[in-house]
Parts: sequence; structure tokens; C-alpha cells
Amino acid sequence: MSLSDKDHIWTAGLVVIGDEILSGRTHDKNIAQIASWLQVQGIRLAEVRVVADSEDRIVDAVNALRTANDYLFTTGGIGPTHDDITVDAVAKALDVDVIIHPDARALLERYYSDKPGGLTQARLRMARVPEGAELIPNRMSGAPGIRHGSVFLMAGVPHITAGMLDALTGTLEGGMPLKSETIGCWTSESEVADILRETEAAHEDCQIGSYPFFREGKVGANFVIRSIDADDLSSCVHTLCDALGTAGLDFTPGGI
Amino acid sequence: MSLSDKDHIWTAGLVVIGDEILSGRTHDKNIAQIASWLQVQGIRLAEVRVVADSEDRIVDAVNALRTANDYLFTTGGIGPTHDDITVDAVAKALDVDVIIHPDARALLERYYSDKPGGLTQARLRMARVPEGAELIPNRMSGAPGIRHGSVFLMAGVPHITAGMLDALTGTLEGGMPLKSETIGCWTSESEVADILRETEAAHEDCQIGSYPFFREGKVGANFVIRSIDADDLSSCVHTLCDALGTAGLDFTPGGI
Repeated sequence: MSLSDKDHIWTAGLVVIGDEILSGRTHDKNIAQIASWLQVQGIRLAEVRVVADSEDRIVDAVNALRTANDYLFTTGGIGPTHDDITVDAVAKALDVDVIIHPDARALLERYYSDKPGGLTQARLRMARVPEGAELIPNRMSGAPGIRHGSVFLMAGVPHITAGMLDALTGTLEGGMPLKSETIGCWTSESEVADILRETEAAHEDCQIGSYPFFREGKVGANFVIRSIDADDLSSCVHTLCDALGTAGLDFTPGGI
Repeated sequence: MSLSDKDHIWTAGLVVIGDEILSGRTHDKNIAQIASWLQVQGIRLAEVRVVADSEDRIVDAVNALRTANDYLFTTGGIGPTHDDITVDAVAKALDVDVIIHPDARALLERYYSDKPGGLTQARLRMARVPEGAELIPNRMSGAPGIRHGSVFLMAGVPHITAGMLDALTGTLEGGMPLKSETIGCWTSESEVADILRETEAAHEDCQIGSYPFFREGKVGANFVIRSIDADDLSSCVHTLCDALGTAGLDFTPGGI
């Protein structure tokens, strides 16, 4: 592995497809789930776009994020109903045809063999893939996820996507996972803004995020320090804790 | 009001700013909250982008979504710490300077007058706005939200954003609110895919979304019918319920 390979920061984009998220009806759970999973693979989620069930919107978002990142994920719109148009939109974005994948067809034939109606035309829609794609196993239901090169089409239902992520674990090339430590403090973040800024400036390979909250009638904040290097991370955490202690503030390693 | 005004569909874009969402550490609650609030104002949320705490990424997303929509909202990055760069990024996107807003300064002076340290330089950061902006009141803390024309800068902390949305309720021009009805059914959505497609095709002013779930060991789905016209909506709901009944399926008005 060359130095430039080693230093490459692997990134992913995510396109969340669904009118139900944009209407506020459904609270998205896939962003956090995929983000956390990517972190463990050493891949950073660089951007998310939530778009409507509209072919043009999906094509634009898929093309923008797949060219800007190493990987692209989508969630939603791969089921059997008329509003499931993700396969068609992604095929258009990749400029390939839509075909029936023989293994997906066989999977669905088995899955529906003992169910009323069997493998109907509507259910067969779930075997459609962009030409050149392979399947991502899904233990939760008959319908598989779809991989086409660096593009991954996942379900909208979070626990089905969780099963697909399990199947992909360890198979994607990534870099060093970003490590993080959290320090919690019952203070208003404006009180410690200088400490945070100075600590981050003194540790150039670390980022510090400040996440305020209001609980039990009091203001507080969690400070999250991130680095790919464990030593840099540890050194930055010590500097921050020393500075908070010197300012007379109690802090909680691990966060509040 | 001319016919073209009446027929205009008002849309908004949302830029969620924050490394904490992209790392999976924090589950976003602002997308659903703002989406639901916009629906009531007669404004559709057309697209959401979640971007990192990076000036370039924020500028790109803000400019893309504000030119494509009637309104643009951002959440996050308007606090007092070094990672709060939303005001600078939005000012750059709008090509205006950043100034200290006199009313925001006065608000913060009052708010911090009885608090240790008073109005420090870090806290004064929260009075910075893109030149030409007005303030959005915030009952929850000293720091106001910011409005610059059709661009609205809201907090990252959901309950603070809720207070800012309250202050804006009824002040934005919108169209007819999209009405919706939900029908729940204990069926696999593939079983009723034809019914959904045919019902939607017969009611061109309605959209039907199908949202499958898996609960209590059984599959089910909620069908959400949307329209801006109450009569069209009601007629579409009746057609769907008739078709489900004819197919021998029990359904639950209001959803499961």
C-alpha cells in the first residue's frame, strides 16, 4: 500500500428516498444507522440527501454523490409497489438497463412458494436490478438489497437495512476508523468556547465538536474529540480535561 | 390572486449542518419536526441535505437549495463555539458581510447580565448575522434564530428550533396544505400492489404511498393518500377501501 493509499480518507454519500420522510410522517432511522456502521468500516459519511419519490430527483442526487464519494448508498423504494422507483432511477443514473436478476427471481420463487398468490408480477418487481448488479443477502424478507459497483441499494425499513448492512460488514475497503472520546460538562458551552477553540488549535489532527443540551432544568454540553490516531486523541482529551479542571469545572469522561 | 399564484406549489429546502449527525452520534429530529410544521403552513419540504461543519459544503448546499425552492431552512451551527460556522457560511452564500445585530446584542446583554462572566466575546458570536437579516425570537435561550429574506437559520437543538418555528407560524406565505388520510392493513404490500397502482391511476390528483412494517410477528402496511383537494382525497380513500374489502382484506381507517 502506497502512502497516498494509506492517507486516503474513504467517504460515502447517502440518498434517502421517500416522500414519507419529507412529509414528516416517518422519522428517518437509516441515516444514524448507516452513519454508525460506516464509522466502524473506516468510511466517513460525507453527505446525505433526502429526496422525493421522483425519478429526476433521485437521478440527480445519486449522480452528484456517487461521483463525489467512494461509495454511495440509497435507502427506500425497492419494494413491490408503484411508488418503488429506485431501481429504475439508479439504472438511469448509471446508464444501464433494468433486468430481472435470475438469483433474485429464484429467491423470490422460493420465498413465495408457500404464500397465497405465489410469485405475482408485483412481487417479481423486487427481482429487477440495474444490469451488472449483484445481490445483497437479506435474512429478514425475500427481497434482496442490490450492489452495483460502488452503489448500494438498501431497504427503507430500518431492520431490513440492518440485515443488509450485516451482510456487507467487512467487505468494503475503508481507512482507519475515526476514534472518538466524549467529555460531558454541566456548563453552558459559551462558558468554555475559548477552551475548546484553543485546545483544538493545539491538536491539529483532532476535531472537537460541542453538543449542548438542556436537561433536568440545567444546561450542559458534551464535547466529542475525534481523530484517526489514538495517541493524538488521548493527548487532546488530557489537554481539554486539564483546562476544564483549571477553570473549576467538573467534567464526566464518557459524556453525560 | 391570479390563477398561476393560486396553483403555485410552495416548496422549501432544508440544510442540516452537523458532523454529529453524519457520525451517527446524534439522531436528527429536526427533519421530521420542520417537515411537519411546513405541511401545516402549506409548504412542501422538497429536499434535505445533511452536510459537515465545512464552510464550502454549507455554501454549496445553501445555494443549491435556496435557488430551487421558495424557502430555505438550516439547522445547527449558530451557537457560541468554534465549530459554529453557519452564519459565516450563509453570509458567503448570500454574498453579504457578517455584522453584529444591535437587537441581538441587546438581547444577549440582558440574558447574560445576571450570569457569571456576562457577555463574553464567545457569547457575542451569537449576535453575528448576515447583513440585512432580522431576528427570529427564541423563548428558550438568549440566542435568536436568523431570517434573511427567504433564508431561515435555526438552532440544532430540537426544542429550541421548536420555539423558533412557533414564532414563525402563520408568517410565511404558502399554498393549500396537503391533506392526507391513512388506511392500515395487515397484508404484505406485494399482495395489494395492483390495487394501489390502479386506485392511484384512477385519481390523478392524489398520490398513494405504501409504507410496510413488521410488528407482532406479522407484516402489514399503511397506505397514505395525499391531495390538496378534500373531495378528491375522500373519493380516492373510498375507492381504495372498496377494493381492499372486495379482495377480502380487513383495513383500519387512520392506520395501524
